[in-house]
Order: sequence, then C-alpha cells, then structure tokens
Amino acid sequence: MKTIYTDTHRLQHGNLELMDGQLLPCFEKPERADLVISHVRASQLGPVLEPQEFGIAPLARIHAPNYLAFLQSAWDAWVEEHGSDHHALPLNWPIRGMRSDIEPEAIDGKLSYFSFDAGTPITPGTWQAVTRSAYVALTAQQWIASGERAAFALCRPPGHHAAADYYGGYCFLNNAAIAAQAFLDQGAARVAVLDVDYHHANGTQAIFYARDDVLVLSLHGDPRQEFPYFLGYADETGLGAGEGFNANYPLPWGTDASTWFAALESACERITAYAPDALVISLGVDTYKGDPISQFLLDSADYPRLGQRLARLGLPTLFVMEGGYAVDAIGVNTVNVLTGFMQA
Amino acid sequence: MKTIYTDTHRLQHGNLELMDGQLLPCFEKPERADLVISHVRASQLGPVLEPQEFGIAPLARIHAPNYLAFLQSAWDAWVEEHGSDHHALPLNWPIRGMRSDIEPEAIDGKLSYFSFDAGTPITPGTWQAVTRSAYVALTAQQWIASGERAAFALCRPPGHHAAADYYGGYCFLNNAAIAAQAFLDQGAARVAVLDVDYHHANGTQAIFYARDDVLVLSLHGDPRQEFPYFLGYADETGLGAGEGFNANYPLPWGTDASTWFAALESACERITAYAPDALVISLGVDTYKGDPISQFLLDSADYPRLGQRLARLGLPTLFVMEGGYAVDAIGVNTVNVLTGFMQA
Repeated sequence: MKTIYTDTHRLQHGNLELMDGQLLPCFEKPERADLVISHVRASQLGPVLEPQEFGIAPLARIHAPNYLAFLQSAWDAWVEEHGSDHHALPLNWPIRGMRSDIEPEAIDGKLSYFSFDAGTPITPGTWQAVTRSAYVALTAQQWIASGERAAFALCRPPGHHAAADYYGGYCFLNNAAIAAQAFLDQGAARVAVLDVDYHHANGTQAIFYARDDVLVLSLHGDPRQEFPYFLGYADETGLGAGEGFNANYPLPWGTDASTWFAALESACERITAYAPDALVISLGVDTYKGDPISQFLLDSADYPRLGQRLARLGLPTLFVMEGGYAVDAIGVNTVNVLTGFMQA
Repeated sequence: MKTIYTDTHRLQHGNLELMDGQLLPCFEKPERADLVISHVRASQLGPVLEPQEFGIAPLARIHAPNYLAFLQSAWDAWVEEHGSDHHALPLNWPIRGMRSDIEPEAIDGKLSYFSFDAGTPITPGTWQAVTRSAYVALTAQQWIASGERAAFALCRPPGHHAAADYYGGYCFLNNAAIAAQAFLDQGAARVAVLDVDYHHANGTQAIFYARDDVLVLSLHGDPRQEFPYFLGYADETGLGAGEGFNANYPLPWGTDASTWFAALESACERITAYAPDALVISLGVDTYKGDPISQFLLDSADYPRLGQRLARLGLPTLFVMEGGYAVDAIGVNTVNVLTGFMQA
C-alpha cells in the first residue's frame, strides 16, 4: 500500500489549547505524524510518496468561499490586531438564538464565527499545512482512482471535525470529505465514509447530511459524555434526500473491543448494502486503551482485525488519518490496521 | 438614592479568561464593585443597604429550570471530574447546525451547552455570588415598587449577557431582566430596559424578544466589530408579539459623546412613546475612553449628563450595575450618572 505524506504538516504546531480550565500544550502535535511515518517506513507497507498540488478548486467543492478566504488570511489579520506572540484562539461562539448570517469584520469575531471550540489554534503555518494535508488525501485518492486497491493518506492536521464553514477539534479542512467528493467528481455514483476515530465525525456528517451520494457512518464516544457533544446521536439519520444515509454508533465510556467490533459489524453491513464505488476510512486510533483524551479499551492487537474486516468489504479503500494521541502507540496501531488490511 | 450592595460579590473571583489567545486575569473582578461602593459611600448619594433573600422563584421567572440546576451544581461536578486546581471553563460550543435539544451528561459537555464564551469561569462561589447579585436587583426593585423615585442595584457579577439558559460575558443571571419581570409580576403593564453598557444586551434581548410587555433598547459597540458579535444588529426588532419592542443602536469603534448622546436621545424618545410603568437601566460605564477592553470615547464629565437625561424621562428608575473595567474610573463615572439623575 502506498502512503502519501509530506513534512509540511509540521507547519501546524499550535502551542496551547483550552482544556480542563487551563491552556495545555496541544495534544494534536507534529510528533504524531512523525511517529506514524517512521513506523510506516520501518514496516513492509510500501512506498512513501509526496503529495501533488491541486489548487483551491477541490477544496471549494466542500468548503464555503468565505471560510476558505478566512483561513487563508486569518493569521495575518490576527497579527495586525494582536501581534504574533500568541496563536489565534476565538473568544465566543454563535450558539442557539444567535445570528449565523453575518460574518463579523473584526478578526476576533471572524475566529468566533468560523469555529466551534477553543482548542484549535491558528498559527503562521496553518493555511500551508492544512492545504497540504488535503492534497495528501487527494493524491492518495488519485492512486485509487488509477486502480490501486488501497492507499494511506497520512494527513495532518486531521479533518473530520471541520464542516463546510467551521473548524474545531484540531481540524480545518475535511480531508476525508474532500477526497470523497473527488471520487464522485471523477464518476463514482456512491461513496461511503466510515469514521472509526474515537470522536464523532461531526464535520463529515454535516457536510453530507442532506445527500444520498455519500453514506456517512461513525463509531464514537457517546456525545452525551464526549466531545463534540452536540452531534453524533443515534437519531441523526440524514435530512431530505439524505434521509437514511447517515448512521451513528455512539458507544459509552469504557467500551471494549467486543462491543466496538459488534458496532463495526453493523456499520460494515450497512456499507455492503449501500454498494459504494469507493470507501473512505477516517482512521483515528484514539480508540486505544492508552489514549490520553479518550475512554475506549482497544488494544494494539485489535487493530489488525479492524484492517481485516475492512478488507473483506472488497472495495477500493482510501485510509485518511484522523486522531490518536497516545504518541508512542499510534505508529504501531495505525500500521497494524493497514497491514491487517493488506494481509486479508 | 438608596444603593443595595453586599460583599458576597467577592465570592465570584475568576482567575482567568481566554482573551487575545491567552488566559489573562479576569477583567471582571471584585475590585470593580469595591471601588464603586467606596465612591458611593464617599458621595452624598444616600444609604447603602443589604439585599433581602428571595429564594429561587423570581430567578425561575426568567431562567430555565435545567439551567438553574446546572449553575447550582456545576462547581461540584467540575471538582469531581477535574479537581479544584482550576476554575471551570468550557471546551466547545453548539453552533449552527449542531444540536441544542440535548443537555450532555458530562460536566464538560454541560459547561459547553450552557455557555457562549471562554471568558466566564465558574468558581466555588459562583452560585452564591450570582444569586445574591440578583437579590440586590430585586431588593432595589422593591424599594421602587414601594414608592422610591430611583434606586441603585450595585450588582456583581453583572447580568446583561446571560439569557434564559446560557451564560457568558461574565454574566450568569440576568439581574436586569429578573427585576423587570418583578415589576410586571407586581402589576406593571409595561417595563422598559435601557442598556447603556458598551456591549450589546444580548441576554436581555433574547429573554424578551417575543414579548411586548418589555421594551428592550441597547446602545453598544457594533457587533460587526465587538463582542458578542452575534446579536445586537439594528435589524433585530423583535419577533411575533414582540415585533417592534426591541431596539438596537450599534455604534462604531471610536464613537464620541456627541454621536453617543444622539443615539441616547433616539432611545429616550422610544421610551417616552412606550410609556412604561417603570424603567430599568443596565448601567455599564465601559463607554469611558479609558476602558481597557472598549472603544468609545466618553469622558467622566459626560456621565452626569446621562443621568440628567434619564431623569427627564420622569419614570420610576432602577439602575442595575453591568460592566466597566477601567477600575480607577468606574467609581467616579458610576456615581456621576446617579448624582446627575438625582440633581436633575
């Protein structure tokens, strides 16, 4: 399996995120991707290739023009207002009953308008890093469109929490959604996106919620207990033409492998029934029992089994890296999924 | 004029708020009210009285039961989950497209559900302080209901950013709205709430937006430029039965006294036309040119003029303290408004 990767991810290195009432060093850090690529290289997985360039067009198929313009200019606007001593974090958010139809002029207002958390700093290198992360996904998608059975897009920053016009949860551009759209734009009739990250794929769900050409499925910590709290419930099944094409599998804190794989089996049956032309896996390994910000109990030996089950779906499969914060273990666990897939 | 005040406000002493990409010491601090009461005592304004107790009923006339239950229990739940080393701040917020119909079970989810910013810490003393702040407003309201021409509720924490079921902007219970409702519950047909704080009265507006028995007017920094960004635009005029009973006067950064008093004059004309039985003034003095987080240019000599104009409305008038962060000046400026009123 080919892996697509670029060191450009290191340009996104946020200093601090708001957590537990403090500003803590960001859990989403360059070391994550560095460790995964080092394990990929040490394994027999296959070649590691640089991404191509794609311009703005494939990003604009998923994200709103004013949102892309904001992301591109936000750091400079922040520096003009606040200087460069601190990375950009928002102040407040447009919750229920507040206006969502007016983009403020002030940079603090724009940050607040286009985000949903206080844990996703915008830095000098954010735009460069997030566009390259999307290009990693698009390059891997092209390999599959060219006939590869599978490819691994080692994206960083991750993408699944980002919607058409907002960022959060360390995510700015939704790499999996951008790649899924590329499959469709190149002739696929249906694509399935299965998100196995510990956290709900709120961005991916929001992007495709009213569409029937992308089936979105997510296994994740129950939002009653877990970030992002406000999407990911089982009764969210799609809207309008999209009704029946969104499936959530919320699972409680302490979920073990047995329960988790039972939910995976249900999701796989839904995918088989949908008969997509391609499958995108939003691959987070924060389901691991040692993850510092998650509460599931999967062990390293469970990840090959995940890869094997996905392989049995028999679909062209694009793996897109999402979360996983137990730094020492994420290299092993990620490669375990991919080698499990290839050996099946 | 009687002033109602209690030292209990000091129990709300948040350590840190998220601003400019950092956690900074809270601008909303006990020193604010201490300086105002010291200026009140040094002036000839009148007696300073302690608040009475009112229980939960008058708070529940404005705020949702689950919100009040949350505020009362939040600190203990936070300590159980995170310990007591840091005050409670939320993580993320339910913005456009996210669910607002499910209160999460985890304390981090509840904080996120019931708030709209990352600048309003919940502390061990928050519940005690905010209920007493509301009782300060209710006690002052009772003096006016008993025939006083005016009274000054030296509330702290402030209230005007708090809505029926969310907090933010240093505000938890909407003291002005609770007092306005008390006037109505005691027989008033109509009450006007005029907010002269630098920031929009988003909570007060949201609470009364669909009602015609409370006219809400707010002069404030244009939300295109200024917190809270997502309410306070001129086209927000009320909803349903409330249509025509909400008036916003957004003013740009750098607004001087001349422009500000012209807007005040328009608001006063609206109040006269409404002919309310009582007037509640949400009194912030962060319109002052030296305020550290605001951008208007009023000087200390402008505040007596404000008091004089309000007196000319000839209405029973309850002053409720809101913002103002230029600590040395807020005592002078606040008392200037009140003495201006009494001397008119």
